[in-house]
Order: sequence, then structure tokens, then C-alpha cells
Amino acid sequence: MRPIQVDLGDRSYSIRIESGLLDHLGAEIRRAVPQPSRAVIVTDRHVGRLYGPRVDRALRRAGFPVDRITFAGGERNKTLPVASATIDRLVALGADRHTLLVALGGGIVGDLTGFVASIYMRGIPFVQVPTSMLAQVDASVGGKVAVDHPRAKNMIGSFYQPRGVFTDPTVLRTLPEREYIAGLAEVVKSGMIGNPDLFAWLERSAADVLAHSEAAILHCISAAAGLKAAVCSRDERETGERVILNYGHTVGHALETATGYDRFRHGEAVSVGMDVEARLAERLKLCPPGIAERQRRVLATLGLPIRCPRAVQRRIMEAMKHDKKSRAGRMRFVLPVRIGEVKVVPDVPQEEVWGVLQGDRV
Amino acid sequence: MRPIQVDLGDRSYSIRIESGLLDHLGAEIRRAVPQPSRAVIVTDRHVGRLYGPRVDRALRRAGFPVDRITFAGGERNKTLPVASATIDRLVALGADRHTLLVALGGGIVGDLTGFVASIYMRGIPFVQVPTSMLAQVDASVGGKVAVDHPRAKNMIGSFYQPRGVFTDPTVLRTLPEREYIAGLAEVVKSGMIGNPDLFAWLERSAADVLAHSEAAILHCISAAAGLKAAVCSRDERETGERVILNYGHTVGHALETATGYDRFRHGEAVSVGMDVEARLAERLKLCPPGIAERQRRVLATLGLPIRCPRAVQRRIMEAMKHDKKSRAGRMRFVLPVRIGEVKVVPDVPQEEVWGVLQGDRV
Repeated sequence: MRPIQVDLGDRSYSIRIESGLLDHLGAEIRRAVPQPSRAVIVTDRHVGRLYGPRVDRALRRAGFPVDRITFAGGERNKTLPVASATIDRLVALGADRHTLLVALGGGIVGDLTGFVASIYMRGIPFVQVPTSMLAQVDASVGGKVAVDHPRAKNMIGSFYQPRGVFTDPTVLRTLPEREYIAGLAEVVKSGMIGNPDLFAWLERSAADVLAHSEAAILHCISAAAGLKAAVCSRDERETGERVILNYGHTVGHALETATGYDRFRHGEAVSVGMDVEARLAERLKLCPPGIAERQRRVLATLGLPIRCPRAVQRRIMEAMKHDKKSRAGRMRFVLPVRIGEVKVVPDVPQEEVWGVLQGDRV
Repeated sequence: MRPIQVDLGDRSYSIRIESGLLDHLGAEIRRAVPQPSRAVIVTDRHVGRLYGPRVDRALRRAGFPVDRITFAGGERNKTLPVASATIDRLVALGADRHTLLVALGGGIVGDLTGFVASIYMRGIPFVQVPTSMLAQVDASVGGKVAVDHPRAKNMIGSFYQPRGVFTDPTVLRTLPEREYIAGLAEVVKSGMIGNPDLFAWLERSAADVLAHSEAAILHCISAAAGLKAAVCSRDERETGERVILNYGHTVGHALETATGYDRFRHGEAVSVGMDVEARLAERLKLCPPGIAERQRRVLATLGLPIRCPRAVQRRIMEAMKHDKKSRAGRMRFVLPVRIGEVKVVPDVPQEEVWGVLQGDRV
């Protein structure tokens, strides 16, 4: 498959998607990042056990001295203290400005590693080697890196681009089914915000996706990562168009915050968020009736959650007020106008949001 | 005095230097940063007590709602935990992407505030209001922001430009004499690396500078900040020319690290560092003999320290090995070739450095 380009001047990079890529990762990285003198793999315990030695070998074969830093993983560890501990380890290893960080793992590993790379010595190079569906279709692309604050997700971070994204879909074979499905939420989102063909294909091909067909997986990754690459190439720092990628995320992030980051996977929260936000769009008469139902069917068929737990509704409202995307108390949403198109609505009255959330009671 | 421009495309800003500027700061900021909805002053206890209320009033007069965050100050508090606590306060205040941070203080306040601005919500606007000599002549310009790591200074940071620098030299009247003199080291550096006229002027006018003549102070600030602005405009991220600004800093930073950041002021450490590095240049026959002595006389006349304490020499060597500017164990220095010109020497043998350091025994 031809690499997908993210065009950002001197920060441009490509996304390679290829079965078996992990085994010649070192050579691929050598080609994309010529200067590094050594590599440090940053990973979580689970992925480190599964793929650490293989990536280690692939990097050594390409002539890199390799070290590995492992942290506990999980959204609860995507924090400033864990980033700080990672920096301590880099200092202890004597990592310098020419050390390449290799983020081996899901979105959490990528976000934390990218954030560390962005602030260690005012910025050192890093590459993404995404191993979860969520990271392969979405999180590894676009250079949004961050850690969470107890009060809000991704509160502390940077825009900092990787030097390359190296995606091997075969690693998804070891991904727990729940994680695999959670990642599909971002593929549904991709269809909803800018690719009606992808959405229609998901409606037709959910069975293939759920059967882990290699062709279906490749299509999901390349379509979603490709759309995101195009959007981010036009608007790196989210001053305009890029905000559409946040569809489902205003409610989704708030749901994660309200439930302490451990009840819902990110993709699951986005699924719930998209359902709430599509119903909000219908309530505000921004889109024809039926859109929310059609989206709900795809999400449900793929096994994604839709219901927003009643007990946390008030906390969701609270968390949304702290969202980076709200300004001076007003709530900004990205809402669908049809399948494949969304628009930014900067000033949604809180009562309307509350009304839709409460609709979940029935 | 005409503002000095830092030309960096959409990250350009200007440096205003004017006696009494503090009292119309709000209006000046309004002109430079049109969007902010509110301002949060970040300062240390000492400066906050002296100038907090005045800056607060000046901002309110221009229509900004104003909050203030105060931390203990001092290099020992320029840390990731203090940055984290500042972020907690911003979250508690409900600061959003349109909140402007006002760094009111010396280099430490500017570095910490700028770093927080660079990572809070992936970057919010900030301005520098430098109140120390060091910050007015050097640290407030150029967008290098960072906190220290226990093992190395400025280890954790970003390149992140302020939206403006607002310098009122009259605030130096309350600056302790030791701080005033420490800041002059960066003015000497400025002369040594790129402005032989400034250096010669310092040789002639040390008495005026030490007498706190307003004209002499304005000349120091505008010459040093002007040179730095020009260098940073040509090389924002220190991929080339900008490295010359590190003259005196390889040894200087190591001395600070070796003495736990509390024995030497930054400028004092740079003074010692420049003396060591000028003698290193002579030892390596990179400059004619006499340069080090001429520099030593200016530094001594201004009351700056030169001697490197014998007890910490080994620790200085250790710290230099961890310096961001060293690569794979080699030591990189910026060394003078004549008054007003330096060059980068990437691969200085450790023994030569050690030899010069030990010269301090006599």
C-alpha cells in the first residue's frame, strides 16, 4: 500500500501501513529518520511483553543501540507524574537530542511518548508504532500529544509531529476484542465527518470487520488515517477545519472524565458521545431526522456502546464546562448535518444538551 | 525607543523597552494581543508583592479580568512539580485557550510561565514582563522556556514564543544589587559573541552602569536584547547560529547543576563559564592570547565572579556530560576567536577542559 503523506513543510512525514512491517521496522525508520544515534522504545507492560523483543531486534538489525522504558499503561497512567518518571529514565540513560523515541503501543503510549519527546531537551525525534485499532486508525496521526489532568483529559500537551507512523495491522491479532471494537468508533466517526462512502461500506461490511478480515481492516485503517492526514495537513494546530475530528469527543471526553477514565475505553466513550451529539443535532434541527438512528445502528452492529449512564449525567455536564473547546462557559459542539458532513456549532445552550442527555432515561 | 522586532512569521512579536511602561501595560498588551478574554499574572512572592497590584490595576484598566498565581520563586522552584501546581491553579480558575498568561518576574518566572503556557491545553498565549536585569537583557527574548531537572538545568521545555515582551527598566530600582550585577554577565556575553562596540563601551562605561545611570541601563538592554532578537529571528530553534548565545553556558549550567542551583546566580555562573571558556579558547589556540584577560577585567570591574570553586570541578565535568549540547559523550563548546566573534567547536577533548578548570587552583 502506498504511504499516506502528512504534508506539513519541514514537519512532513508519512504513514506506512503494511502487514509484517514490524520485522523490518529498523530499516524503515532508518530511511525516514536518518540522524538518530540510538533508539529508546517506550511501551506499556502488556505491549512490551508481546512485541518489545521483536521491535528491539528489528531496530538492532538496522544498527541502532536500543533501550526500553516500560510503564504500567492505561489511561490512569497517562499523567504528568508518569511523563516525569519517563524523563527521569531518559536522563539516567543519558538520552541526548539525537535519541529517537519509539512509541510502541496504543493511543495512551503514543500520547505520553509524544508529549515526553516534545518537552525532553525542548524536543527530540519520535516515531509512532501503533498497536491498537484506535491508535492505528486515529491517535498515531496528527501530532496531538498530551497527558491527562485529574480534572480533564489531554489538558497538558503539545502539537508535536512524529517523524513517521509505522502501522502493522497484524499486531491487532493479539488485541483484546473489546479494544479492537472500541477503535472502530473512530472509523465510524471518520465516515460521519467526511467520508460517506466509508460509512456506507461500514453499514454493508460490519460482518467482515467483526470477522477480522485482513482486507476490511486495511480499508478501515487507510481510510480513517488517510482522512485524518488530509485534515491535519490543512490545519495542523486546530485553528479551523481540524476541529471536525472532535465529533463525538465533547461528550466522549466528558464521559471519560466523569467515570474516572476506567469504565469506558476512549473509543467506547466516543461512540456514546457520537450518539448523544447526533441526537443533539436532530433536536436542534441541524440535520434531517433519521441520521442519529442510522449511526446508532452501525455503532450497535459493531458492538459499540451507546447508552450514557444516568448516574453520571450531571458530572458529564460539569466536565464539559472544563473542556478545552468551551470558551467563557459556552459549549461548542461539532454536529452532523448529514452522513459525511459536520459543522461547528459554537454556542449550544446547556439546557438542550441536558435535555438530550436525559433522553437516555427512557 | 522604537520597539525591537523578533521576526518569526506568524509567531513574530516585538520588545518594547520604556521607562514607566508598567503603568500602561494593559493598553500595550491589548494592542499586541487582541483576542484574550482574561489575564492571569504568574509571578513569584517577592515580585508579586512589589509589582503585582500595579500590574493588576494596569490590566484591569484595559478591561481584562485579572487573576494572579504566585509561587515561591528561586531556581530550586523552577521544576516540573511547580509547573504542575501552576497548571492545577489554572484549571481551578477555569482558564481556557483564550486566557493570557502574564509572566511578571525574572528569568525563572518567565521560563516557568512560558513552559506552562506552552503545554496548558497544548498552548495558550503569554507575554513577558521581565523585572530582573537578566530577564530584561536576555531571558525574556527568544522563546526558550523550560524547567530544570534535578540532574540538568532546562532539561524539560519547549520553544514557545511570547506574544510580546514589555520591559520597564525602572523596576530594576528595586532589584537587589547582586541580581543587577549578575544580569550584566549576559551583556558582556552579548558583546563577546557579536557586538565588539558594546564590549568596548562596557570597558569604558562600567562606572555608569554600576551607578545605575538610566541611559547606560537602556543601552545595555536594547543592545543585548536587540542582538538576541536578530539571532533568534534567523534561527528560532537553535539548529544553527543561535547556539552562539550559549557562550559561557556549557560551563555555566554545569556549575549551577554542580552547586545545586543556589550558590550562584545564573549570570554569575555564566561569568565564571565565560572565563573558563575564554581560557579554553586560548589553550586550544583558537584566539590570540589576551582575550581572556581583557574579558576577565570587564567581568571583575562589574563585580562579577570569575573563580570556579575547586571543590566542584569534578562535578562540573560530570554535569557537562549530561548537557543537552553534548552528543554521544563529546563536549561541544562555543568559544571566542576574537572580541565580538565566537565559533562552535563540536569536539573538545575532556582533558583540555579539565586542564583549564584545574588552572583555577592557582
